[in-house]
Amino acid sequence: MLKLFYSPGACSLASHIALEEAGADYEAVRVDLKAGEQNKPEYRKLNPKGRVPALATDRGVLTESPVILGYIAQTHPAAKLAPNDDSFAFGDMQAFNMFLATSVHVAFAHAFRPERYVKGEAGVAAAKAKVPEALDEYFEQVEARLSDGRPFVHGDAYTVSDPYLLVFTRWFERDGLGRPDRFPRTLEYRRRIEAREATRKVLADEGLR
Amino acid sequence: MLKLFYSPGACSLASHIALEEAGADYEAVRVDLKAGEQNKPEYRKLNPKGRVPALATDRGVLTESPVILGYIAQTHPAAKLAPNDDSFAFGDMQAFNMFLATSVHVAFAHAFRPERYVKGEAGVAAAKAKVPEALDEYFEQVEARLSDGRPFVHGDAYTVSDPYLLVFTRWFERDGLGRPDRFPRTLEYRRRIEAREATRKVLADEGLR
Repeated sequence: MLKLFYSPGACSLASHIALEEAGADYEAVRVDLKAGEQNKPEYRKLNPKGRVPALATDRGVLTESPVILGYIAQTHPAAKLAPNDDSFAFGDMQAFNMFLATSVHVAFAHAFRPERYVKGEAGVAAAKAKVPEALDEYFEQVEARLSDGRPFVHGDAYTVSDPYLLVFTRWFERDGLGRPDRFPRTLEYRRRIEAREATRKVLADEGLR
Repeated sequence: MLKLFYSPGACSLASHIALEEAGADYEAVRVDLKAGEQNKPEYRKLNPKGRVPALATDRGVLTESPVILGYIAQTHPAAKLAPNDDSFAFGDMQAFNMFLATSVHVAFAHAFRPERYVKGEAGVAAAKAKVPEALDEYFEQVEARLSDGRPFVHGDAYTVSDPYLLVFTRWFERDGLGRPDRFPRTLEYRRRIEAREATRKVLADEGLR
């Protein structure tokens, strides 16, 4: 059985929802980041990077959201969570997930964990000050993509990119960073993905709404 | 025919070497970043992000190094550049490539393009000051991985992770950031990958050594 290590509302939420959408046989194990559980030897043994998500399989542990999302899609083909048999379309989907990982998530991380990227207090302030601008730029790209009225990130078919983008639309509204009101299609999209049965179940399981 | 858009020595070098190792039918097209070619309308039409690498296929354009590397491996199975038929092992390889993309490359980018991440001059200085420390942390992980004497990142078999890691070992020595002399296995590894025929050909084609 798969074991997903997650923290409520963290980017691990995407993998959690994907497992639910896949109808996977899995167990979700909460890691208390505030209590520092991710730095305890037992967890570091599992994931030396000390982050979530981590997915324990019978072969070993996978890390990094796009990897776990791709793996869930490929190992549960009946759920059709990705264009598994089309190297180009699968790559195009993963390119969007990489944009979320390397641009959008990294921008948020400059607000949440600036000490990872800059030295000193002036640096922390300068990093935080840049975040709204960076998010504006990235969410303009998301809004443009949704502007043709498509229901999902990649068109008419739901993919694992959808729960991943959902995570960041939630952070965008929650954290007072940037100007979400400028992105009506993106907010509409968030409501649409949150209305899905699998999303609602996982949000409840993580104690979120 | 595949067309790879690259800039000499940029992270696109990894995809360029992978195409060569794959024996692919491709053309390499140089994008002059210093002259701002990546911001011209023709290039933006191809890759709205205005970055390299971009791989034009007969289906459309792929971006992001781990995606292009995975695509090259999957579409040239005879070259055995990845464990293509093993979802777990492929995911594990991509998790390493994601570590390069989201941690190592992002750390270097704070030295090369700090204005992407911080506001103001004090911020730029604070971002640059953090880079050597971040690189030390990440190259310790690389050095540890190579400490069992394995010839390649993932063991005895060469994969597309190897040209990707090569890019960053080159930057590490070139740019006076961090302390490469502390990482003897990593430097040895760089020489080993650079000695391969495909690498030598591509370095020559890009006008590098």
